[in-house]
Amino acid sequence: MRDATINEIDQVMQQSQTAFRAYRKLAVSRRVEFMYKIAEQLQESADEIIAIAGKETNLPAARLRNELNRTCFQLTSYGDAAAKGEWRQLRRDDADLGKTPPRPLIRKMMVPIGPVVVFGAANFPFAYSTAGGDTACALAAGCSVVVKAHPAHAGTSEKVATIIERAAMMCAMPAFTFQHVYGVGNEVGRALIEHPLTKAAGFTGSLAGGRQLFDWANQRPVPIPVFAEMSSINPVFILPDKLQREPALLATQLAASVTLGVGQFCTNPGLLIAPKIPELEKFKSVFAEEIRKNQPAEMLHTGIFLNYVERRGNAVAQEGVELLATSEIEPLHNQGLATIATVSGDVFLNNPLLHQEVFGPFTLLVQCDDMNQVMEVAQKLEGQLTTTLMATPNDLEQFPDVTEAAIDLAGRVILNGVPTGVEVCQSMMHGGPYPATTDSRFTSVGSDGIMRFVRPVAFQNWDENQFEKFGI
Amino acid sequence: MRDATINEIDQVMQQSQTAFRAYRKLAVSRRVEFMYKIAEQLQESADEIIAIAGKETNLPAARLRNELNRTCFQLTSYGDAAAKGEWRQLRRDDADLGKTPPRPLIRKMMVPIGPVVVFGAANFPFAYSTAGGDTACALAAGCSVVVKAHPAHAGTSEKVATIIERAAMMCAMPAFTFQHVYGVGNEVGRALIEHPLTKAAGFTGSLAGGRQLFDWANQRPVPIPVFAEMSSINPVFILPDKLQREPALLATQLAASVTLGVGQFCTNPGLLIAPKIPELEKFKSVFAEEIRKNQPAEMLHTGIFLNYVERRGNAVAQEGVELLATSEIEPLHNQGLATIATVSGDVFLNNPLLHQEVFGPFTLLVQCDDMNQVMEVAQKLEGQLTTTLMATPNDLEQFPDVTEAAIDLAGRVILNGVPTGVEVCQSMMHGGPYPATTDSRFTSVGSDGIMRFVRPVAFQNWDENQFEKFGI
Repeated sequence: MRDATINEIDQVMQQSQTAFRAYRKLAVSRRVEFMYKIAEQLQESADEIIAIAGKETNLPAARLRNELNRTCFQLTSYGDAAAKGEWRQLRRDDADLGKTPPRPLIRKMMVPIGPVVVFGAANFPFAYSTAGGDTACALAAGCSVVVKAHPAHAGTSEKVATIIERAAMMCAMPAFTFQHVYGVGNEVGRALIEHPLTKAAGFTGSLAGGRQLFDWANQRPVPIPVFAEMSSINPVFILPDKLQREPALLATQLAASVTLGVGQFCTNPGLLIAPKIPELEKFKSVFAEEIRKNQPAEMLHTGIFLNYVERRGNAVAQEGVELLATSEIEPLHNQGLATIATVSGDVFLNNPLLHQEVFGPFTLLVQCDDMNQVMEVAQKLEGQLTTTLMATPNDLEQFPDVTEAAIDLAGRVILNGVPTGVEVCQSMMHGGPYPATTDSRFTSVGSDGIMRFVRPVAFQNWDENQFEKFGI
Repeated sequence: MRDATINEIDQVMQQSQTAFRAYRKLAVSRRVEFMYKIAEQLQESADEIIAIAGKETNLPAARLRNELNRTCFQLTSYGDAAAKGEWRQLRRDDADLGKTPPRPLIRKMMVPIGPVVVFGAANFPFAYSTAGGDTACALAAGCSVVVKAHPAHAGTSEKVATIIERAAMMCAMPAFTFQHVYGVGNEVGRALIEHPLTKAAGFTGSLAGGRQLFDWANQRPVPIPVFAEMSSINPVFILPDKLQREPALLATQLAASVTLGVGQFCTNPGLLIAPKIPELEKFKSVFAEEIRKNQPAEMLHTGIFLNYVERRGNAVAQEGVELLATSEIEPLHNQGLATIATVSGDVFLNNPLLHQEVFGPFTLLVQCDDMNQVMEVAQKLEGQLTTTLMATPNDLEQFPDVTEAAIDLAGRVILNGVPTGVEVCQSMMHGGPYPATTDSRFTSVGSDGIMRFVRPVAFQNWDENQFEKFGI
C-alpha cells in the first residue's frame, strides 16, 4: 500500500464531490439502509477483521469484539437518528402579509456540508477509524466520505473499507460515496485538508497532529471546520468528605480505570487531585497495591509504547515527583507498565510539563495542602474531555467552586464514577475546550455528532414541494 | 475618546470573567428582565440616540427609528427565546444498570461559552452594533459582553453603552456584565481577540477585517471561534420563463432592492445573472430607467463613500464591462450614485475582480449566452449570504441544477423575492459559506444566533438538584 499522490487525491476529491451531489439527493431511508448494511457486513466478516486488527494493534480479541459491536451500534443508531430527523432542526415562520413590510414564509433546515475527510484513531481501529463515528456521522448527514487509513492499522482499514464498498454496491449507492486512501507521510493529510472540494474533517489523535490539520484548514483561502479530538488528562477531584469515608473503594475504582485497556483511552484519568488529609495515606496504599499487581499488556504499537516510556520517564524525572508504585510483574515486549506517581500541589502548579498527557497506564496524584490549593490547581489546567468529582453531597455543598471549575474545564462532568467508558447515546458529549478538541461546541460520540457535518439553509418564499424534491 | 491600552484591555477582560461567573448563575428570568430593560431604556432615549446616530451615519431618522425598533425586538425576542430554553438542547438518557457495563444517567445541556467580544457594524449603528444582535445573543446565552465601539459612530456607541449600563444598574446585574471600549487602531481589536479570557467574538464588516480577526483567533495558543459576517454579492438568477413573462416587473423590483438604503445592506443584490433572450432588453431598459431617476443620498461616512467610488470605478473600468445607467440626479456631498453595468458571461467568468463586492447602490448584470453559461457562472461564485431565484414552476422543473447551485452557495435561498429585508425570526439564516462568513454553521440573525455562544456539557451521574442549582 503506497501513499496516494497529489494527482490521485485531486481525483478522489473530484469523485467525492460528484458522489456527494447524488448521495445527498437520496431519500434518507436509503442512507439508513446503507448504514445498516455496513453494520451487517462488518458482523459477517467479524472473525476475519478481528484477526487482522488483533495482529496490527495487539488488542485482545474480546475487546475488539466489543469495539466492533460498538461500531455497528454507532452505524445503526446514527442511521436511526438520521431517519428521525431531529438533526434537520426544522424551523418555520409563516408569512404575515399584514406586516409592514410583509413577512415572507421562511423555512430553515440543516443540509449536508459536503465531502468530509476522516483521519482515524490509533487506539480504536474500528469505532473511531474507517467505519467509525466520524464516518457514520458524515454518512448520516448526507455527506460523502474520504478516509485516510491510519498507518498503524492500514490492513484493518483496507479490509473495513472493502466491506463498506461492498455494502455500497449492495445498496446501489452512488459510486465513490465512500473512498479510502493511504498516506504515511504528512503530504497526503495536508493535500486532503487543503483540497478546495473538502468541506470538513474529523480527526482523533495527538495534539501535534490535530493542531497541524486545524492550522492548515484555517490557512486555506476558504477555511473549513476541522473537528479534532486530541489531548486530555481527565482530572479527578477527590473531595475531603468522600475521601474520608471511602479511601479504599475510591482507590480500587480509580486504579481499575487508570489501567483499563493499558490506559490507552482518551478518557483515561491521568491526574488525581486530593487534599492531604490523613485518609489520603490509606488511598495511596490501596492504589499502590492495585498498581503493583496489575498485569502488564502489550500496547497498540511500538511507537505508542516508546512514547509511553519516554513521557512517563520525563514525568517521573521531574523534581519533586515521587514514584509511588509500578506494576511488579515483569513486562514482556512492548508492554506498558502501570504507574502511579505523586507530587505536591506547589510543584505541580509550577511545572507545566506535568499538565501534559502521558498516553498509557499512568496517573499522577497531586497532593494539595488544602482545598484552596485544589482550586488553584483546577484553575491552572487546560481544557479536558472530562472532569470527575468524587464527592459527597456535603462536599458539593461546601465546595461549589470545584464543581464550577470542573464544568468550565470539560465537556463531560462525572460525579462519583470513572471517566473511562464513553456511552454511545444522544446525551453524550465527547469533546471539550482546547486542547481536548479544536471546537468545544461539538461532540464526536453520540448522534449529535451529526451536527458537525451540516449547515443551515433558510428557504424563503418556497412551496414545500418545490425544494423538498431536491431531497437535499 | 482615546484608544484603550493593553493594560486596560487586560483589566476589562478580567472584569468580564468575574462578571461572567456571576451573570451565568442568575436565573434565566433575570437575564430576560435585563434584556427587556435595555429595550425599554433605548426606547426612552430614542429621540436622543437617533439624533446622535443621524449625525454620525447620515442615515435618515425614519430608517434609524425602524432600526431602533428592530434592535429592541431582537433584545426582547432573544430574551424570550432564552426563557423558552430551546437553546439548552436538553438531552437525557436514563441509567440502565442491567446493561454490561451498566449505563449511567447522563443529561446534556448547553452552557454559556464565556466572555464574548463584539465588533459592531458600520451600516447598522443600532441593530448590529453596541446593543445589537451579537450582544443580545451573548447576553441571552449567559455570557458577559465587551463591545468595541465602531470608530465611525463612536458617539452613538457610547450613548447606547451608557443606556445598557443604566439598565444593568436598574436590574442589579453583576458589575461589568457589559463593558465598552474604544479603539480606532488594530491594536485594540487584536488585544481583545488574543486575550486568554476571551472565549468567542462576533464581527460584522469587511472581508479583510473579519479575516484578520479570524486569523488572530486561530493562531492563539488556545483558538477561539470568531463569527465574522463579511462579504456577499447576493447573486440573483433570472430564469428564462420568468424573464419572458415579467421583464418589467422584475426590473422594478430588483432596482428597488439594489438602491434601498443607498445599497448599504449586506444582502444588497450586487449581481444579476440572466440568459440573453429578447426580453432581457426590456428588463434592461426598465432597470436603466429606474436607476436614472433614483434619488442619490449621502452614504454612511466618507470612507464608505470613497470606497464605493473606487470599487464602482474599478468594476466599470474592466474590459468588456459596459455602463448601462447611473442616476441622472446631480449628487451632493458623499452621495452614492446608483449604477447598473453589464458584462458578458465570458468576460465575467474570466475576471475575478468582478466577483467582488462593491458596497453601495451598484449592480452588475451578467448576460449569459444560455443556461449552460448561467450554470458555469454559478459554479465560479464564492460563498454568499443569499442567492435569489426569479423563476416560474416551469423554470424550476427545467433547471434543477440552478436551484442546487443556489443552495450550495448560500445560507438563504429566496424564490421570487428580493434578498434585502432580513426578518428577525427563528427560521432566519443570516450567514453562509466563506467569504460570506467565517463559519457557515451559524446564523447572526434570529434567536438561533444564541447557539454561537454556547457549548454542550454532559452531566453523568448527577441528581438534577445537584447541578441545576449552579444555574449555569
